[in-house]
Amino acid sequence: MNENVLGIVAGVLTSASMIPQLIKILKEKNVKDLSLVMLLVLITGVSLWVWYGVMKDELPIILSNGFSVLVNLSLLICYFIYRKS
Amino acid sequence: MNENVLGIVAGVLTSASMIPQLIKILKEKNVKDLSLVMLLVLITGVSLWVWYGVMKDELPIILSNGFSVLVNLSLLICYFIYRKS
Repeated sequence: MNENVLGIVAGVLTSASMIPQLIKILKEKNVKDLSLVMLLVLITGVSLWVWYGVMKDELPIILSNGFSVLVNLSLLICYFIYRKS
Repeated sequence: MNENVLGIVAGVLTSASMIPQLIKILKEKNVKDLSLVMLLVLITGVSLWVWYGVMKDELPIILSNGFSVLVNLSLLICYFIYRKS
């Protein structure tokens, strides 16, 4: 299989798996089971993967981790909006 | 920064972020909030990332996604052990 096709399929699958978490939080407006530290560690990690992808010039890595950054930043924003309730 | 060091740091951070989920499930023996479909999608996705890493000969990708495969297979096993309770 072509490397880029493989990377894009892998990226779509791992990215898609995070969407239910975001939908659940948005619906339930409940973040008590989210760990702030872990969210910050994860955002740092996926941001570094984007940087790695840029250095290696690998589009599948940049796209899938870029998407992860967006999803996890959304979770972080939800965390601060909903933590009081 | 050296690309491999960057990839390894990124991999350690994203891998570490999954451990609390596994510990939580092992402690609480409760999998009702785990989605089987999403677990299967995620395991397929990270397995394809390992394959991508092997094709590109990139150790950080192989190691961090290989670790993800192990953690998520453990979650899958927990799912089948604890789903009845």
